[in-house]
Amino acid sequence: MTEHQELELHTLPLKYQDEPLYMQLYLHLREGILAGDIKAGERLPSKRRLADDLKISQNTVIRAYQHLVDEGYVKALERSGYYVEELSLLYRPVETTSLSPPAQGEKESSKILYDFAYGGVDPKALPLKELQRAYRKVIGESQLELSRMPHEQGHEKLRLELSHYLFRARGFKAEPEQIILGSGTDYLMNLLFEILPEDALYAIEDPGFPRIAEALKQRKRRYKCLSLDQSGVCLSDLEKSQATILAVTPSHQFPTALIYPVNRRTELLQWAEESGRYLIEDDYDSEFKYATRPIPPLKSMDQKDKVIYLGSFSKSFSPAMRVSYLVLPKSLIHAYQNKQVLFPCPVPVLTQLVMAELIASGEFSRHLNRMRLLYKKKREVLVQELSKAKDYCAIEGADAGLHLVLRLKRARADHFAEKAAQAGIICYPMSDYSIQAELGERLILGYAQIDLAELEAASQALIKLLREI
Amino acid sequence: MTEHQELELHTLPLKYQDEPLYMQLYLHLREGILAGDIKAGERLPSKRRLADDLKISQNTVIRAYQHLVDEGYVKALERSGYYVEELSLLYRPVETTSLSPPAQGEKESSKILYDFAYGGVDPKALPLKELQRAYRKVIGESQLELSRMPHEQGHEKLRLELSHYLFRARGFKAEPEQIILGSGTDYLMNLLFEILPEDALYAIEDPGFPRIAEALKQRKRRYKCLSLDQSGVCLSDLEKSQATILAVTPSHQFPTALIYPVNRRTELLQWAEESGRYLIEDDYDSEFKYATRPIPPLKSMDQKDKVIYLGSFSKSFSPAMRVSYLVLPKSLIHAYQNKQVLFPCPVPVLTQLVMAELIASGEFSRHLNRMRLLYKKKREVLVQELSKAKDYCAIEGADAGLHLVLRLKRARADHFAEKAAQAGIICYPMSDYSIQAELGERLILGYAQIDLAELEAASQALIKLLREI
Repeated sequence: MTEHQELELHTLPLKYQDEPLYMQLYLHLREGILAGDIKAGERLPSKRRLADDLKISQNTVIRAYQHLVDEGYVKALERSGYYVEELSLLYRPVETTSLSPPAQGEKESSKILYDFAYGGVDPKALPLKELQRAYRKVIGESQLELSRMPHEQGHEKLRLELSHYLFRARGFKAEPEQIILGSGTDYLMNLLFEILPEDALYAIEDPGFPRIAEALKQRKRRYKCLSLDQSGVCLSDLEKSQATILAVTPSHQFPTALIYPVNRRTELLQWAEESGRYLIEDDYDSEFKYATRPIPPLKSMDQKDKVIYLGSFSKSFSPAMRVSYLVLPKSLIHAYQNKQVLFPCPVPVLTQLVMAELIASGEFSRHLNRMRLLYKKKREVLVQELSKAKDYCAIEGADAGLHLVLRLKRARADHFAEKAAQAGIICYPMSDYSIQAELGERLILGYAQIDLAELEAASQALIKLLREI
Repeated sequence: MTEHQELELHTLPLKYQDEPLYMQLYLHLREGILAGDIKAGERLPSKRRLADDLKISQNTVIRAYQHLVDEGYVKALERSGYYVEELSLLYRPVETTSLSPPAQGEKESSKILYDFAYGGVDPKALPLKELQRAYRKVIGESQLELSRMPHEQGHEKLRLELSHYLFRARGFKAEPEQIILGSGTDYLMNLLFEILPEDALYAIEDPGFPRIAEALKQRKRRYKCLSLDQSGVCLSDLEKSQATILAVTPSHQFPTALIYPVNRRTELLQWAEESGRYLIEDDYDSEFKYATRPIPPLKSMDQKDKVIYLGSFSKSFSPAMRVSYLVLPKSLIHAYQNKQVLFPCPVPVLTQLVMAELIASGEFSRHLNRMRLLYKKKREVLVQELSKAKDYCAIEGADAGLHLVLRLKRARADHFAEKAAQAGIICYPMSDYSIQAELGERLILGYAQIDLAELEAASQALIKLLREI
């Protein structure tokens, strides 16, 4: 902020309407100064300017200003104007305390030694210079696009780049017309619930994302929770449920981290072939596979066009970008376009064009390759350290993604997480993601956000605590 | 794109699974080359690299590559690698034609002379340099914030700046804790429908935003449409409707452009004082007032904390940013926080921090002042020209905002708009915004997107057409 910013004032509240005009202005300015909305050192608008903006007389402004000067809120400097006084001695505005709980990874940092959060990416590895360059370039060349509403499905450029990317990275062909951009998976799931038939019966994974169940509930859609065997949702449960739509995370089930094997995938695809059925495939962290040959997504095996594919840049780039996308089967494009009124795409045009630029320039791909190496190393360190405490815990599902699951052998996960938090180590009980399932002994450990250099110490600190409990 | 970008391939689709592995790879690459997803001049990954990425043997890769070379899709350059051939003679990928109708302002520009679109801002007036600078600064200093999920209500910095801004610009005090950021008004309205009691009966303006009616319908909320007299929604209709929540655009009713007078506002506020009732005030373009003394928003008169305030940067900065915000009454903050699962804020952190930076640095305010002058001039030109055709049309509601309403005296608006479109002039019949109301003779004319230098000619062209019909 510049030293002597000039205050702008474009309206007078009506709450002082029984007072004369000069008094209304005085009271309003005084309130702003006392509350800190008008800051010490700021210059009040010139009399002429304010009279013009508020459509009142200059005399009214002069009277109000004089009142503020008389009471010491403001000082008049000759040939310069009126400036708000430093009020430190008179009054200190109360620091507003947050009413909301701290978001994940935002807890008081002074007490936290290590946070095994799984919602973020490695902060030090973000290509900031390239991001600056991409924003600079795109802002310079997109004047027109920056001045109007985005296309409701998202900008053509990004949908085209995504179409190429999906072919290369995930092995299937999606036309730009099938792609819809959204602000996060939640947004797109909600959109899907509007596109799909109202009387559909949804089946969702348990454990899974409770937010999905919540959204279904709020939209008054019917759903059933299906538990998982070691290969994911099983066909007999699915058939018993009578569901018509199944939502799954086959590449790396969240949160259990299991990978659906090919046979299970084929079974589910066959199930979906029946008329009116669909599979929703949430491929949220598919970019990261460490062990075996990568299993292609359901969508690439989808001969009958029954898979709705959800992808995201949250893991592959950053969750702070809030860009995810939907690939609709061709049979659903009309249902989408026939929605009586289409909502404009919620992703800022600039964000869309920057992501397109990063893909087109190859920067996204270079970044992903660096991240694959980095996360692979992190995973190795973590697995190596945790393997030293086999009596206390077992590792599950460390073959993909940016988190693994730790099954505790001698403690309940929620008790342990509480204890660990007191020692400055934050880890996450899987039971937070259970809708009905019993998961008392499992912890989710994310390793994207902890620095590689610190991960060994972090793992050792965790094990030390495990041994103490 | 660099001349010789190296292709990345991270998965093989299962659709060729009955073929031997080398054939799967060959078929997949060939498909990508033919479809244009793999482009001429691109280098295929090195044999070692691809074998490693796909967990197959190098011999398999060699066989597949050789096959592609043999058939002319790829050429091998010694000591350099395999490059995709230019296929112009063999094949030209079909240009995908859009399945979706062109978005507003995106119609084939070759035929359009003037577009009186009302959804955008003046493209030439956007402060691109300052925007570049803000992104550069924010990216440089926000490493940590860029690596993780945003706070569900939005970043504290922007909520704090908004709190100051609202006091100065709109004359009321909103604590950062009361502010929730969202991607556009639609998003926030949908959020509100979840926060407010399920059995609420909504009253909405007709004409108004049909998307709101649609969203209410989809969420199975009850609503009634209220017609407008010359001062907006009237109290007797409202009482008769038995509604508990009223959504209005009092600063500049959309689309009729009328401004609710103070008396009507006071009546509505008194109505809302009864327990269980709320007013939703959508203040979407309040930054632009041209004629009389600015009327403060309902929220600034809201002694009983019954007004839910919706603001947006769509008109004051650009709709391409997709940033809007909600100010919740304190009594509703708990209802918001008690929603079983909170959705993460859909606005990218970077966009939030850049808006905060623009407000804090004073750039937003300087931009607004420039825009007030610019749009005032545009409005004057338009009003002056249209006034010359009083026999054919009458101007309504030109005192605020970025659009005015033209009542046609000798033609139906939809017929005229169709005729005008044939002559390359795009204008918008208000009937698109009618839910039940009859508005056959009214046109919406936005003047933000047409260049000031062209507006006179645009208005004259419009009048010429009016006289011909």
